[in-house]
Amino acid sequence: MSVIRQSARPPHASAFDLPGFLESRTAAVNAALDRFLPSASAKPATIHRAMRYSLFAGGKRMRPALCLAAAAACGGREADALPLACAVECIHTYSLIHDDLPAMDNDDFRRGKPTNHKVFGEGIAVLAGDALLTQAFEIAAQAKGWLRYSHRDLIREIAWASGSLQLIAGQVADLEGEGRKTSAAQLRYIHERKTSALLCCSVRLGGMSANCPPAQLKALTEFGYHVGLAFQVIDDILDVTQTSEQLGKTAGKDTQAQKATYPAIVGLKRSRRIAEELTDKAFAALKPFKGQAVALAALAEFLLKRDR
Amino acid sequence: MSVIRQSARPPHASAFDLPGFLESRTAAVNAALDRFLPSASAKPATIHRAMRYSLFAGGKRMRPALCLAAAAACGGREADALPLACAVECIHTYSLIHDDLPAMDNDDFRRGKPTNHKVFGEGIAVLAGDALLTQAFEIAAQAKGWLRYSHRDLIREIAWASGSLQLIAGQVADLEGEGRKTSAAQLRYIHERKTSALLCCSVRLGGMSANCPPAQLKALTEFGYHVGLAFQVIDDILDVTQTSEQLGKTAGKDTQAQKATYPAIVGLKRSRRIAEELTDKAFAALKPFKGQAVALAALAEFLLKRDR
Repeated sequence: MSVIRQSARPPHASAFDLPGFLESRTAAVNAALDRFLPSASAKPATIHRAMRYSLFAGGKRMRPALCLAAAAACGGREADALPLACAVECIHTYSLIHDDLPAMDNDDFRRGKPTNHKVFGEGIAVLAGDALLTQAFEIAAQAKGWLRYSHRDLIREIAWASGSLQLIAGQVADLEGEGRKTSAAQLRYIHERKTSALLCCSVRLGGMSANCPPAQLKALTEFGYHVGLAFQVIDDILDVTQTSEQLGKTAGKDTQAQKATYPAIVGLKRSRRIAEELTDKAFAALKPFKGQAVALAALAEFLLKRDR
Repeated sequence: MSVIRQSARPPHASAFDLPGFLESRTAAVNAALDRFLPSASAKPATIHRAMRYSLFAGGKRMRPALCLAAAAACGGREADALPLACAVECIHTYSLIHDDLPAMDNDDFRRGKPTNHKVFGEGIAVLAGDALLTQAFEIAAQAKGWLRYSHRDLIREIAWASGSLQLIAGQVADLEGEGRKTSAAQLRYIHERKTSALLCCSVRLGGMSANCPPAQLKALTEFGYHVGLAFQVIDDILDVTQTSEQLGKTAGKDTQAQKATYPAIVGLKRSRRIAEELTDKAFAALKPFKGQAVALAALAEFLLKRDR
């Protein structure tokens, strides 16, 4: 689908064993999430079953992978980034549960399974989302605090990215934009908040867990911002070009809900070009890391080329 | 309605100017919340108006008052407790917004005003609750961390009290108990979680903000636990005995929803006696503070005697 400009692409990225990286990190994240969460039988069992249902529904763990890869790029230990990677995944899962509610996007399927409220009812789905959001902060507080980045910084980082000025702002703007004419600038505003904010936060947290110097954090921010935007452009493209079976969620929802998307505004071909350009910018941001950011680079390329 | 046993009641409590205390602390908390929250015009305006609508709907600020009073009892500065007091109020308000949703208690009025979803719609109400929950952690992270209680401790304290094993567990058990026969023990389980957990957390956070020694924190925990239970028993009684106008919310809801309540299980007279006994236990817990906990004692008495 895309041809990355060879000049932009960091060396070694194609030699990197990304499937092996993703498999081992997904296993580590899943095991850690299982440890951090109350067991499925903890009373009241309903809420813990509901939380675990969506958290272990086969998510691709892209945000945790980005967080761990960023820690590695900064020379940190992935174990130190793990609680933060898990916290971000809890935030992501909560946001999906709430976004799927009838009062919002009203989706029946997610990751090929019935959505949380279809299985547990709306009341429990709202509470399961609330509980995962709360759990995220409990987990994040278990990360190590360093001299350069205290617990205060880590908590504020997560709260900012998932709060009313970023993640939630994106969902609000998305809801309010349905059926209205949206400009490319407004669409960028939505994508920055709905998707890029939390992806960027994941990458930054990885760096912070490695006690990275400010210049590296700045480079990670650049990288995360552009990867996040590219991720959402690709999501828009897949919604148009793939079937529901391929996506594991209802395809064509954006068009149906008259949602603003890149393909709707600038067409498919130009959308693909935009995603490639954004990924190029993400690659460029990795320059200061030299060969160290190979996992991050491979992830950015993978996210651009994915078909679901 | 109640006669506190004079032996249990701490001296000086009746001489304390509670109305003056509540008025000044409510003003301080409201001003701080206004500072901590994005302005009502911050983009997207809808979400910030919705957050502020419920947060400034005339809540009694009992949890912040307990937090500040606990800080004072431990010889701390109330300014140090203020962010934590505000964080707890954000949690409380979020839980009310979500509890009032049609999928949960389906309430049209709260504090004499239409509930959040009645004004802003269900989708925005869910997001406004999410945003207040997230904001709570952002605000709490702005508190001072002390040697004895770090930011990690403060964040975990709030996440625990409002998480799936406490506050949310109470709401789940409450939902699942509707229309079923509930024992006094099960009702105690619900009350401990739905109400006592966050009240107790408020009091503990006040002590932690004052860097209190472990013995004081234990005493505050005892106090908060019993005041929290008494608070909910009184709530149950008021739901039966007061009109909707007096309460500012729909009266008789518990009976209508066939919810378990103390009056329904043990009768009104015995319920009142239980609330008094719980308050006596709260008073007893304040003994180690000698005269210093006068505001806490006055609050406990006020909560027992309130008529709305």
